[in-house]
This record gives sequence, C-alpha cells and structure tokens, in this order.
Amino acid sequence: MVAPILFYFDFSSPYGYLAAQRVDAMAEVHDRTVDWRPILLGPAMSESGNRPLLDQPMKGDYARRDMERMARLWGVPFTLPEPFPVATLAAARGFYWLSQTDRGRAVPFAKAVYLAYFAEGRDISRTEVVVEVAAGLGIAPDAFLAAVQEPTIKARLKAEVARAMELGVFGSPFLIVDGEPFWGADRLEQASRWLATSGW
Amino acid sequence: MVAPILFYFDFSSPYGYLAAQRVDAMAEVHDRTVDWRPILLGPAMSESGNRPLLDQPMKGDYARRDMERMARLWGVPFTLPEPFPVATLAAARGFYWLSQTDRGRAVPFAKAVYLAYFAEGRDISRTEVVVEVAAGLGIAPDAFLAAVQEPTIKARLKAEVARAMELGVFGSPFLIVDGEPFWGADRLEQASRWLATSGW
Repeated sequence: MVAPILFYFDFSSPYGYLAAQRVDAMAEVHDRTVDWRPILLGPAMSESGNRPLLDQPMKGDYARRDMERMARLWGVPFTLPEPFPVATLAAARGFYWLSQTDRGRAVPFAKAVYLAYFAEGRDISRTEVVVEVAAGLGIAPDAFLAAVQEPTIKARLKAEVARAMELGVFGSPFLIVDGEPFWGADRLEQASRWLATSGW
Repeated sequence: MVAPILFYFDFSSPYGYLAAQRVDAMAEVHDRTVDWRPILLGPAMSESGNRPLLDQPMKGDYARRDMERMARLWGVPFTLPEPFPVATLAAARGFYWLSQTDRGRAVPFAKAVYLAYFAEGRDISRTEVVVEVAAGLGIAPDAFLAAVQEPTIKARLKAEVARAMELGVFGSPFLIVDGEPFWGADRLEQASRWLATSGW
C-alpha cells in the first residue's frame, strides 16, 4: 500500500490551478492517488515575509507573463481574474466538508472552483459564487451554505493549514511525494521522475 | 543574422551556476550563440524588496534542498559554499575586462569562477581567489588585478547592471530570447522550446 501524493494548493493560486490540471494524470502513471488539500497561504505569507507575487516590483510583471505563457503551453484556459488574489475560505471549507460527507465530489468541486476563477473570471471569494459552482455539481445550496459556517468545518481548515505549515508548505502548488517536497507547477516533472526512480 | 540569447547571471547564484552548465549546449541546438552577462543582484534585490533566498523562513530550507536535488539530477557537482551569498565584484569586472580584451577567454573564465565557488568551495568574493582562477586560464595576475580596479571597467559593470534592470532582470539566471524573458534554471527547457517554435 503506497502513500498518496500530497497536493497542497490555494484556490487563489494560478500555478496551483495549472498543476491541478495535471497532477492526477501524473500520479496515475505511477499507480498513485492524489490527496488534494486546499489551504490558505495568508498565514504562510506572513510567516515567510513574502508579499503576493504580482505585487512585487519587476517580479510581478514577469510572473503574470510566465503564468499566461505556461497556460498556453499546456493548453489550459487562463485569464488572470479581477480581483486577484482573493481569500478563498468558503471554497476551502466546502472542499473539506465534501471530503468528509460526499468524498467523490470533493475533487470535481475543487476543479470546478478553479475553472470558475481562472477560466471564467468569477469571484470565488464570494460565498454565493462558490455555492453556485457547487450547485452545478448537484450539491444542495442550503447544505453547502450551512456547512461552510459549521465550527467543525472551520476548525478542519485551520488544522489543515497548520499541518501544512508544519510540513514546510509555504507556496502553491506544493507536492509532497514520499516525504520529498516539490514546490511549483514547474516541479511536476521532477516529482514524476522522483516517483519513477524512487528518488535520485 | 539572428540575435544571441542574453544570459544574465550572478556569480553567487546557485541556479545561475546550474544554468551555466547547459545554456551553451541549449543554444547550439538552435544555431544560436549566448551572450553571457554577469551582474550583481544586490540592486535588483533592494528594488524588489526580496531577501536572499536562503534567508527566507521555510522557503530557504526548501531552496537548499531543491538546488542540491537539481544538481544531482543534472549530474553537476554542487556544494553550497560558505560564505553564501557573496558579492562578486572582482569576478564580474574581470569578465567584462576579458570580454573587451581577450574575448575568447571570457566565458571559460566565467565557468571556472562558478566551478571554483560551487564545486570547490573557494571564496570568490576575495579578489586574490579570482586572480588565481584567472591565472589557471593563463591570464596574468598583474593585468587582471589592475583591470578590476580600472574606472572604465567599474563603469562597464555598473552600466550592465543598470541595463539589466531596465530589461526587467530581477533574478539569476535570467534569459532573454528574442525579447522574451525566462527566469530560472527551470525555464531553460521552455526557452529552448520557444526557440524551436518561435514562441507559442
């Protein structure tokens, strides 16, 4: 029984969105599953003193170009949304609620949230938008709305963020493959090779 | 007549060192030459508000692991030197002096400086170490020492750093391929593809 690949991501992360298009297929090649774990990067940002990527002079302009270029290369629809970045509490809480109650819908929900934000430009910081995305997958709006206000669900997300930080996760996407950390959509290939060769 | 690939790097940059092992071969595949341009990243760091990579909490630990892992993957000798990072004025000035007076030796000198620092752990912030590296290539120590104190050579390096910043260079390595910027050793492959397909 091999361990799943841990896939940490923030719903507001462009490179997380890109990685989300490929991580399952990459894992499948190696007969692995992927454990999707949305987090909020705000706490890690404060800890590391990093500013949001696009707010950084010079680097911000480059990053915008790089993410659009990589999306074109990978054939993934991408438009940098406005507002950006946003806090994605409802989406992340909704994901963990689904993972506990309706497991098969959690990852499709995550993918739909990412598409809503980065392909359709819908503001996923607004709970009602996330409810609509969930409804598109047949998830009842009332149940979803109640769930994202549940203290146990709120606590679950907090615990996931805390655990991620303990594991050294400071960015998105962030894969952990048999204990080995890989940060960035551009490390998917190395992660795949790591799986193929059991490290190097 | 196609333009050379602009290759900006800091002699104190581990990923610059890694890219330096591959950039010429990558260009050759596409019948291009590489215009090596050492710079000092200090000014760009202040401008962008970034701290040196390894000083950043969480990210620093990851970066150390990532650079060692990539060096192993690429089969390149690498030991993170002590002290690190360092200011590499003499090496960068020496490079531009050679590029003006003994052009064929400039790139071999750059490669030798990188090896001295990242493979042999020699402190290339010390002018006498850089003089020794140059001497290993048959460059006269007295001439080298005089050159790196020359006002015109000092001015050349300053101008190169200023031009790099105008071009949006904020990190190392940084390639500019037909006007298109690629930052990081991990973008060499995309740069190569850009050359193959004239963009995408």
